[in-house]
Amino acid sequence: MATTHETKVVHNFNSGPSVLPREVFEQASHAILDFNHSGLSILEIGHRTTLFQEVMDEARALVREIMQLDSDHEILFLHGGASTQFFQVPMNLLNDNARAAYLDCGTWGTKAIKEAKIFGQVDVVASSKDRNYCYIPKGYGIPGDASYFHLTTNNTIEGTQMHAFPDTAIPLVADMSSDILSRSMDFNRFSLIYAGAQKNIGAAGVNLVVVKNDILGKVKRPLPTMMDYRQHVQNGSMLNTPPVFSVYVCLLTLRWLKHSGGIREMEKRNARKSELLYDTLDSLPLFRPTVDKEDRSSMNVVWVIDSPELEREFLAVCKENGMVGIRGHRSVGGFRASLYNALPLESVEVLTQLMQDFAQRHG
Amino acid sequence: MATTHETKVVHNFNSGPSVLPREVFEQASHAILDFNHSGLSILEIGHRTTLFQEVMDEARALVREIMQLDSDHEILFLHGGASTQFFQVPMNLLNDNARAAYLDCGTWGTKAIKEAKIFGQVDVVASSKDRNYCYIPKGYGIPGDASYFHLTTNNTIEGTQMHAFPDTAIPLVADMSSDILSRSMDFNRFSLIYAGAQKNIGAAGVNLVVVKNDILGKVKRPLPTMMDYRQHVQNGSMLNTPPVFSVYVCLLTLRWLKHSGGIREMEKRNARKSELLYDTLDSLPLFRPTVDKEDRSSMNVVWVIDSPELEREFLAVCKENGMVGIRGHRSVGGFRASLYNALPLESVEVLTQLMQDFAQRHG
Repeated sequence: MATTHETKVVHNFNSGPSVLPREVFEQASHAILDFNHSGLSILEIGHRTTLFQEVMDEARALVREIMQLDSDHEILFLHGGASTQFFQVPMNLLNDNARAAYLDCGTWGTKAIKEAKIFGQVDVVASSKDRNYCYIPKGYGIPGDASYFHLTTNNTIEGTQMHAFPDTAIPLVADMSSDILSRSMDFNRFSLIYAGAQKNIGAAGVNLVVVKNDILGKVKRPLPTMMDYRQHVQNGSMLNTPPVFSVYVCLLTLRWLKHSGGIREMEKRNARKSELLYDTLDSLPLFRPTVDKEDRSSMNVVWVIDSPELEREFLAVCKENGMVGIRGHRSVGGFRASLYNALPLESVEVLTQLMQDFAQRHG
Repeated sequence: MATTHETKVVHNFNSGPSVLPREVFEQASHAILDFNHSGLSILEIGHRTTLFQEVMDEARALVREIMQLDSDHEILFLHGGASTQFFQVPMNLLNDNARAAYLDCGTWGTKAIKEAKIFGQVDVVASSKDRNYCYIPKGYGIPGDASYFHLTTNNTIEGTQMHAFPDTAIPLVADMSSDILSRSMDFNRFSLIYAGAQKNIGAAGVNLVVVKNDILGKVKRPLPTMMDYRQHVQNGSMLNTPPVFSVYVCLLTLRWLKHSGGIREMEKRNARKSELLYDTLDSLPLFRPTVDKEDRSSMNVVWVIDSPELEREFLAVCKENGMVGIRGHRSVGGFRASLYNALPLESVEVLTQLMQDFAQRHG
């Protein structure tokens, strides 16, 4: 929830870029005028200065602390979003004649599969395309010779989330863009994790990559310097000019997350928000959640109203009441409420009250 | 020159990220609290909203207007810096069995050559490495079958600048990172121009690419979606979540440049600043400019003092007087003053006065 000096109340359910803590906005806004009493804007400081080196160091240290990563895992802030990782991952990990296993459980996984096919063979071990990606496939096997197994932990568009991960010796590679830092997880089980910052980490324009050293250096193709994870590791994420301000916003958001109680506290808050919303949806027959119960996401809640006319009407009600980003993705339709870490419970309370009132009028 | 509430005066000679106009900082700072009276921060708006679409559209239109680009040239804001373009250019333009011509006149050109060799043959048509890149090679030939000819218009580290371009039918590809929008030029002569934003366009975290349609689609290799210029053209620079805030800072800087009088006015201001600095250097034997006169850059002025002791002393004088980013790059040593568009003449006046005083004391 954000308020301007005109006290315009906005509830930001955007799917990403999305809501961040108010204190992050205030600190970022101030740093653009004067960063750390340097007399310089954060936008005009050199990235090779102590001023910025401290930002990069603290941001990486906070990721390590918050995610409880062991020393084998390297932490990188890279240019581009998750879409860049869709090809950077196979470019670094998949030889021409080798194969990788992929789970196809949504729009983003499908895109990742397309890019991997440029570099080697791809085994799609399971797909939920048959039911418009409204569930997470289970009970599949992973080929023993796969170079890695790629999965998407949370599907932003379809509103599904993986609540269990396969027990396998194959290196796990995960796109965690839309649920990273939102729930407790043994992140050390993953050999590579990537996430565009613009949901739970910070603002758009930077990518968090966590990578285990032992999977690197095994492909035979020559890698462009900027695409080579090892080069970024060796240069401490400063191979070239990093997206300075985006990294700084990550630092501010990570500090907020830590002093708010860390991932465990975020998980509690997110559970409270998503349970309230799902309970409301389940109690009102007018609204129909589209995802199988066991695979529901705590980050992106998707539902429809079976009457197009009432959908338009409820959308109008939402807009009148300051709800932003509540319209569903065009591939699913209906509604989507994204409940990222920084979204206050109050926003969900206002939304669910609107649903109650609307259902009463149209029940 | 920036002043804080404590009236700390800073003269920002950083080579990039570097000084931007004060009004850009003020507007950017405000937009982080409330963007265009939306009640939302620029950091939390969806990139598919009208709010951001207008930013992207205006930024691209301003680039077209300011650079006077014809309709064959497409304007893209891409993730990454110029270092990403070092490989993206040959990936898109150079077939395995074809060759590209490169001019080697500094650190960045050398890096571009290294990346191009991954994709095809590279002909280095001339190099100024023999004298530590203190001049621009001239009188070279370009092979008639080259797919393109790559040059660096301004060498940030060495302080040289190209003041003439070869008359050739081979498509020209230029890294203009450190002098774009600083001087009048027929930009339509170039088939591809790229520039990291963090000097004259905006803040770090985004890359401006201007590309002529007719050179695209000619390579046979499959391109990762995010690396394919045509994909970005077709999607209006919104193939994935763009670096929203960085694009917005570009827009603010482009608006400032336009209402300040455009490139012609920038060129005049930059000439005034660089002439004052070079004239001072030439008049004081204590200071020795490292670049051949005819190839001097109006953006990055490089000089040394032949006594290491006096170098340290003058550096201390600069620091005491609020000069930031004045130390030369480690590969050249000495001093470097970067005079980008937003650096006020006053900063150069203060610097040259310090030089006069210092020379008088140590002459």
